[in-house]
Amino acid sequence: MKNRLKVSIVGGSGYAGGELLRILLNHPKVSIQQVTSQRFVNQHVGVAHPNLRKQTGLLFSSLSELRRCDLLFVGLPNKKSAEKMPQFMKLAPKIIDLGCDFRLKNPSDYKKWYQWEHPEPNLLKKFVYGIAELHREKLKEVDFVACGGCEATCSILALYPLVKNSLIKDNQVIIDAKLGSSAAGNRPTLASHHPERSGCVRSYKPTGHRHTAEVVQELKVDEVHISATAIEMVRGVLITAQVFLLKNIQEKDIWQVYHQEYGREPFIRIIKSKTGVFRYPEPKILAGTNFCDIGFEKDHLSNRLVVIAAIDNLTKGTAGQAVQAMNIMVGWEETLGLKFPGLHPI
Amino acid sequence: MKNRLKVSIVGGSGYAGGELLRILLNHPKVSIQQVTSQRFVNQHVGVAHPNLRKQTGLLFSSLSELRRCDLLFVGLPNKKSAEKMPQFMKLAPKIIDLGCDFRLKNPSDYKKWYQWEHPEPNLLKKFVYGIAELHREKLKEVDFVACGGCEATCSILALYPLVKNSLIKDNQVIIDAKLGSSAAGNRPTLASHHPERSGCVRSYKPTGHRHTAEVVQELKVDEVHISATAIEMVRGVLITAQVFLLKNIQEKDIWQVYHQEYGREPFIRIIKSKTGVFRYPEPKILAGTNFCDIGFEKDHLSNRLVVIAAIDNLTKGTAGQAVQAMNIMVGWEETLGLKFPGLHPI
Amino acid sequence: MKNRLKVSIVGGSGYAGGELLRILLNHPKVSIQQVTSQRFVNQHVGVAHPNLRKQTGLLFSSLSELRRCDLLFVGLPNKKSAEKMPQFMKLAPKIIDLGCDFRLKNPSDYKKWYQWEHPEPNLLKKFVYGIAELHREKLKEVDFVACGGCEATCSILALYPLVKNSLIKDNQVIIDAKLGSSAAGNRPTLASHHPERSGCVRSYKPTGHRHTAEVVQELKVDEVHISATAIEMVRGVLITAQVFLLKNIQEKDIWQVYHQEYGREPFIRIIKSKTGVFRYPEPKILAGTNFCDIGFEKDHLSNRLVVIAAIDNLTKGTAGQAVQAMNIMVGWEETLGLKFPGLHPI
Amino acid sequence: MKNRLKVSIVGGSGYAGGELLRILLNHPKVSIQQVTSQRFVNQHVGVAHPNLRKQTGLLFSSLSELRRCDLLFVGLPNKKSAEKMPQFMKLAPKIIDLGCDFRLKNPSDYKKWYQWEHPEPNLLKKFVYGIAELHREKLKEVDFVACGGCEATCSILALYPLVKNSLIKDNQVIIDAKLGSSAAGNRPTLASHHPERSGCVRSYKPTGHRHTAEVVQELKVDEVHISATAIEMVRGVLITAQVFLLKNIQEKDIWQVYHQEYGREPFIRIIKSKTGVFRYPEPKILAGTNFCDIGFEKDHLSNRLVVIAAIDNLTKGTAGQAVQAMNIMVGWEETLGLKFPGLHPI
Repeated sequence: MKNRLKVSIVGGSGYAGGELLRILLNHPKVSIQQVTSQRFVNQHVGVAHPNLRKQTGLLFSSLSELRRCDLLFVGLPNKKSAEKMPQFMKLAPKIIDLGCDFRLKNPSDYKKWYQWEHPEPNLLKKFVYGIAELHREKLKEVDFVACGGCEATCSILALYPLVKNSLIKDNQVIIDAKLGSSAAGNRPTLASHHPERSGCVRSYKPTGHRHTAEVVQELKVDEVHISATAIEMVRGVLITAQVFLLKNIQEKDIWQVYHQEYGREPFIRIIKSKTGVFRYPEPKILAGTNFCDIGFEKDHLSNRLVVIAAIDNLTKGTAGQAVQAMNIMVGWEETLGLKFPGLHPI
Repeated sequence: MKNRLKVSIVGGSGYAGGELLRILLNHPKVSIQQVTSQRFVNQHVGVAHPNLRKQTGLLFSSLSELRRCDLLFVGLPNKKSAEKMPQFMKLAPKIIDLGCDFRLKNPSDYKKWYQWEHPEPNLLKKFVYGIAELHREKLKEVDFVACGGCEATCSILALYPLVKNSLIKDNQVIIDAKLGSSAAGNRPTLASHHPERSGCVRSYKPTGHRHTAEVVQELKVDEVHISATAIEMVRGVLITAQVFLLKNIQEKDIWQVYHQEYGREPFIRIIKSKTGVFRYPEPKILAGTNFCDIGFEKDHLSNRLVVIAAIDNLTKGTAGQAVQAMNIMVGWEETLGLKFPGLHPI
Repeated sequence: MKNRLKVSIVGGSGYAGGELLRILLNHPKVSIQQVTSQRFVNQHVGVAHPNLRKQTGLLFSSLSELRRCDLLFVGLPNKKSAEKMPQFMKLAPKIIDLGCDFRLKNPSDYKKWYQWEHPEPNLLKKFVYGIAELHREKLKEVDFVACGGCEATCSILALYPLVKNSLIKDNQVIIDAKLGSSAAGNRPTLASHHPERSGCVRSYKPTGHRHTAEVVQELKVDEVHISATAIEMVRGVLITAQVFLLKNIQEKDIWQVYHQEYGREPFIRIIKSKTGVFRYPEPKILAGTNFCDIGFEKDHLSNRLVVIAAIDNLTKGTAGQAVQAMNIMVGWEETLGLKFPGLHPI
Repeated sequence: MKNRLKVSIVGGSGYAGGELLRILLNHPKVSIQQVTSQRFVNQHVGVAHPNLRKQTGLLFSSLSELRRCDLLFVGLPNKKSAEKMPQFMKLAPKIIDLGCDFRLKNPSDYKKWYQWEHPEPNLLKKFVYGIAELHREKLKEVDFVACGGCEATCSILALYPLVKNSLIKDNQVIIDAKLGSSAAGNRPTLASHHPERSGCVRSYKPTGHRHTAEVVQELKVDEVHISATAIEMVRGVLITAQVFLLKNIQEKDIWQVYHQEYGREPFIRIIKSKTGVFRYPEPKILAGTNFCDIGFEKDHLSNRLVVIAAIDNLTKGTAGQAVQAMNIMVGWEETLGLKFPGLHPI
């Protein structure tokens, strides 16, 4: 295990923490030094993450026992991460934050979207937004990374080629996001109680979605309108984005734009088949993978373009994105530890 | 059973036919004379509809044995109904068609959206579109009714009050429809095979949805953009509609508009709670009911309004709508046979 | 509403209470006087039971406001009902208890299976076990009824004809019960949290199942072995019972035994088809119904008989069973208010 | 890629073939030479297995083009494999059969359980039954392997320690098997049509289950009684086995027996927790893994023991078992290519 990068995880008993553990335990160049959880101190990680039983001897540590390490992943509730970040920066030269606290560059956005004052506004500019496909070069040089929110990540990746090529009319996108239940975390509530949540199609955020701020920031599109619906699914996000195109261009031109932008990306696949069952992106075959699958269809009766994108919210939407960023920061092959191709059927 | 209206059903072995049978068998003023199915001639209806075992002695008849009746429900595949309609009109003074063949008033719309020439274009104007909430007065006088498509019905009911009150900007609505698997009928395909269909979030009609024609016709809105996604659900439609409001009006004004239009409607409920689990419409608690639940939320950062509506595609979306229309045509209380309130939890 | 029986419900905000409300609101000879809930005092019943919105004006009352009524349904947590029963008996001449507190005749069984001392052991013998198919004649004369547990009800109905005809070898039955999530009530826990509960096949009670006591009592079979597994389902119980037959009798003899015992029962259907999809009982098409569907198959290589039975745990397993008992107690047609045939597909 | 073992797959478009491809594409010492499918000749494997898009350039070959290879996996329909085996034996020195054709040693068992005459009865004894935990030493020396059926594999592994230690009374086990839909293969039927199959609890094989023959053969227990129920799940088997113990031994003795037998097995975990959500084996966290999780509970009121075991039917139940056998046959580390730990939540 020598020569491996020593990493620790703060907040490792949640779903994102579990996914990160799963990936890192199989990463060929990393060794996990500590993983903290206040609820499960001194208990085996398999108590919180039953898929990790017999995979490791790791126990959860208390946050107060956190030691120096080479790279620290932080997965804490909103605002907690910001409050503790100065202290974490003393323990680790590189930090990847999985939460929302360092995603936005403009401190006032936290007031507008989260209704709280950012406790460390000066740190915001030190963090690079963690989507490798947009910020690969910066990630090679930076020490602090803030991973994108799952719906934001999916939306940004879906629309970035159109924005970069100035194809969207009126600076406006309308996004319908469908989400699984794991996106809401692992604290039980009446809304997550199985008889209530099972089979639901629940409009949980028709307007005012906080991820809007990230999409606006990253795409530099003024009008981003997100409606989010929770559906019967545990892992996964599918976004259906509607834009109107500036010029009357054809599907094959759109194809070219996406191909040019993403053709060499290891974790992006353009999915658009005329036949078969899986003609467009679908989250279920992405469970556990770091892929973002993207497809599109142009309305032949108008200049409307529908862009469809799918990810696993816990992998490409959180933990996988974090490991991809780490691989780049450290100078390793970008796909290390992230090669699981997904299951079918599932 | 005397004095009961004698009704027959053509095409009774499909899902809509089964739902119609279920409702009519418990309708206090109707007696079912015949129900046809080519596949199941002389077999008990329970063979196709296991929920009807021990509920009736009805056997399926062949279409060729169809006799005169007081009112005929027609549930045939696309175009078949149009071809046979002249013949059905000789057998029954009143006809309710469950399919698409008489929904559109303009014959050219069949070419545009269905890619076929309508075989009986002169009959189109004899049919009233079956949504009682829009056409109640006409339904009292007409003999021929064409029930709306399930996604169209849900979309039209969701948006009608806004259109009627001229509140929508740019004559444009964007609709994201989520659907259950029963909407695709009862013929197995690889796409409906459980391991492939289970847990899917499948963009099966990003553009070019045929129900667009009905929504345009009924709402008289020029730009109707529908994207449809199949999700893990058997029964149910949820539509999430996005419109921009002409004037900067408030949520309470919107509430008033909906209340005024739908406040006395027996099958429409405005669902918008600040607390609880079911704050907005959800299809799962509508299974088997004739309700259309409608909710909305105004973006407080823009003039966007999101309207959410849910129905059971087989009830309010087809068979329940048909029975509601029948009740009106015959002059009965509109809710006869349609009082099932739905289950919770489910 | 005059001449209607005035009934009240104690403990009306749980799932069984909601199902009882749904049924009673549509019962032609009953009027609901009060329904209590400590959590929701003075709130509309639709807050707890969203399917009942716009179906009634009923508000929840506090238990302390409970008034005299003709018949009282009691749905309280274990032991609470027993503690308060003497007081309830002063308020209502007839009582139907939905919980476990009066099911067992032998006070010591509460110690053995529930680990508590029964607070009112003398009342136990006043209650008749509520399964009409076994105790119809007694129900006509009694004032106090204890409805059976859902898995017990399903198991007892499945096996009663075999027991009555002395066909079971060694006095032994082995029962595998599959259950939906609603059977565990409406309090959220980590085990009921959707990401954990969804898609589970969870052996939650391999041995020591409390319903064993009821099955032993009602069937008078010494060795009853139940294993219970929670599966992906909200409503429903399916039991797969294995017995060995005393004599080498044929399937057609078994058929005759069941037919003779249950042929005239309004809520029991013998389901055994050689073709079709629904060849044996299945809970999903029973949601909301009062049916118990029963089927069986004899192993042609041994004297093993497998009996399969399905119910909706909240209807025939609780609230429907209670209403069926009430109908008999009051002398009405047994099926009043219980005619919903179930949905297909669902 | 040189020095890698050249393997081919006959019948690679089914679910087991897809799972085998997924595993082998990530196996460090294997290179896939050919994969055949009559339906998809010359098409990319991603057409049948969407999870493998962008993972490989492999196209399906026709069976007639099959070339010599080092090891051949055969996944053909019942009886087809037996018919073609002599021909396959000329092409590959080592063969692993995934189907049922070489599992049973006694030719007459094929008549009894499958109702056909085995075309190559003399080959039966050349094959070793593929469960490594029982036949590891033989697998090191043999060239031909027949993988066990998924329910049989799960049942055999669950009960083997009890049998080996002569603890089961009356030579009798009763097994209730719960299965996902992928076990029935990828051909759509009305029974697998999503609206019919979704949420089902379907007794598809109450008696006469063909896997009985394998369990009897491997465990040498005379009376094996299996009832199988299809439930809402795509991947996975859970078996609940009931046995009566010969002597009155304690749970801790049982624990010792399992620990002694399986303590060093890389793919068997004994799962039995007093707390937490996942206290016993559950298939959902095994999707894609090669684990067999086993737990048990002794009835404290009798000598009944309930043994619970879970696997992924496509991995440990088929393709993973095959790769594990290959690793042993070739002399590699047994876990190569099989290290995926499973996902949680899922």
